[in-house]
Amino acid sequence: MIIDRLYKRVKEVGNVCVGLDTNLERLPESFKRKFDNKTDIIFNFNKEIIDNTKDLAAIYKPQIAYYEREGIEGLMAYIMTLRYLKDNSLLSIGDIKRGDIQSTADMYAKAHFDGEFEADFITLSPYMGFDSIDPYLKYLEDGKKGIFVLVRTSNPGAKDLEYLEAKSLPIYNYVGDYLAKIGKDYMGECGYSSVGGVVGGTHTDEAKEIRARYKNMFILIPGYGAQGGTAKDCNLYLKDGNGGVVNSSRGIIYNFQKFDDGEENIGHYARMAVLDMKKALEENRG
Amino acid sequence: MIIDRLYKRVKEVGNVCVGLDTNLERLPESFKRKFDNKTDIIFNFNKEIIDNTKDLAAIYKPQIAYYEREGIEGLMAYIMTLRYLKDNSLLSIGDIKRGDIQSTADMYAKAHFDGEFEADFITLSPYMGFDSIDPYLKYLEDGKKGIFVLVRTSNPGAKDLEYLEAKSLPIYNYVGDYLAKIGKDYMGECGYSSVGGVVGGTHTDEAKEIRARYKNMFILIPGYGAQGGTAKDCNLYLKDGNGGVVNSSRGIIYNFQKFDDGEENIGHYARMAVLDMKKALEENRG
Repeated sequence: MIIDRLYKRVKEVGNVCVGLDTNLERLPESFKRKFDNKTDIIFNFNKEIIDNTKDLAAIYKPQIAYYEREGIEGLMAYIMTLRYLKDNSLLSIGDIKRGDIQSTADMYAKAHFDGEFEADFITLSPYMGFDSIDPYLKYLEDGKKGIFVLVRTSNPGAKDLEYLEAKSLPIYNYVGDYLAKIGKDYMGECGYSSVGGVVGGTHTDEAKEIRARYKNMFILIPGYGAQGGTAKDCNLYLKDGNGGVVNSSRGIIYNFQKFDDGEENIGHYARMAVLDMKKALEENRG
Repeated sequence: MIIDRLYKRVKEVGNVCVGLDTNLERLPESFKRKFDNKTDIIFNFNKEIIDNTKDLAAIYKPQIAYYEREGIEGLMAYIMTLRYLKDNSLLSIGDIKRGDIQSTADMYAKAHFDGEFEADFITLSPYMGFDSIDPYLKYLEDGKKGIFVLVRTSNPGAKDLEYLEAKSLPIYNYVGDYLAKIGKDYMGECGYSSVGGVVGGTHTDEAKEIRARYKNMFILIPGYGAQGGTAKDCNLYLKDGNGGVVNSSRGIIYNFQKFDDGEENIGHYARMAVLDMKKALEENRG
């Protein structure tokens, strides 16, 4: 099961998920000048980050919106990044948050699990209901793919719908409970399922309850750093230091901006940020 | 306001939204042989449909999943289709159902309102909350763009979350109420807002209540035909024959498959399907 690979990797190198939210506007002119087109700029920026963090990161998560923004050239860099990760035996999460009716979901599943945009894991949005999740499951059967479904997200707006209570249970628990149920069919030897959940590290009140209710759920934890989640907060969602990865995007890939010699050392400063984050997570185990 | 253009168009030609869910696997070999690559096959299929229905359709809705499935070549056809619609002064809905945190939503907004994937309207998913909708609103200000946010969808899974009741109000009403509130700032002269909602035509029990509660909401109604919604059902969401468009995809673009001479007359049979649907909708006004 792919989740066993991720579990083992977390055991070896820690919980850092490097978010590749690569925004062309934030890249230095001195870097951009080296390349002829947007695809090469974006891909080579990612390659610089990956090459300098690949012994430290549990997994990489390109956010497809940043690539879609640059149109075809951007999406070509998205594809090249995922292929580069695969060629280097590194794990990937395509952060696509798709969610649609069954026939449409079949198309997304094909595109992102067995097409040009292939990733090891993808993120999904459950608003339309559970028949919008099911079409992805057939790709989990041979153990090669996994999903992270939005449960309780890291943004302030999480309260608008996810927190609403129906029969004294917040909406996010309806999602979580369904994932726990279907997840049983895709359990790894590590005790976690290839059906994972996204639970933001920014709300902590219910962390213990969520971790206890979903014992077999591997959690993708966004919200660290730029969004306000601390190492202590995020640790609430881990179990013996495993069972989850903590994503940071801007805090890692743009760390170079804080230093005078940053533009010439983008990868180095990304590495420093990952090392700091690893240390913070390790020092704040629950 | 863009919604005035759509309203006027519906008044002139009726409520049919032609869904361009173009699936390469369902296109006849005799058609595919005429072209050298996937982009040209998909685009020319769409062009055939558009050329034969452009005096009858209120708006066109390519579903991006079908194009993503074919990777870069597919997305190039998606772009070409949207440009062709624009060049012919026809309206478009990019059916993308994106939904993400603010900084990410900013990227999707740029991509689909002001980038290569530009459409007149786009669909959005609200699960993550209302701050995942707000970043799109700035593109509505000058009256050129509009959104359709998922309220109550047409699939069976709609019951899983959308129908759950929090304080005796189904979740979909929380979404609808928010859209009604923000929609006031983007009202057209026609009495509808450029902030629209997606309400499936397959569930009819609450249709009158929904139409009454959201008087100023222009509704994108999926679920006609292949998904089970009838002309009578869909009419429940219209007001004097306006205030909504009814989408059909497979029933229109694959209508040719029902006829012996279909493969040579794809556009003709799409036109026949649109005419039938227009007639059915007109004959079953509430």
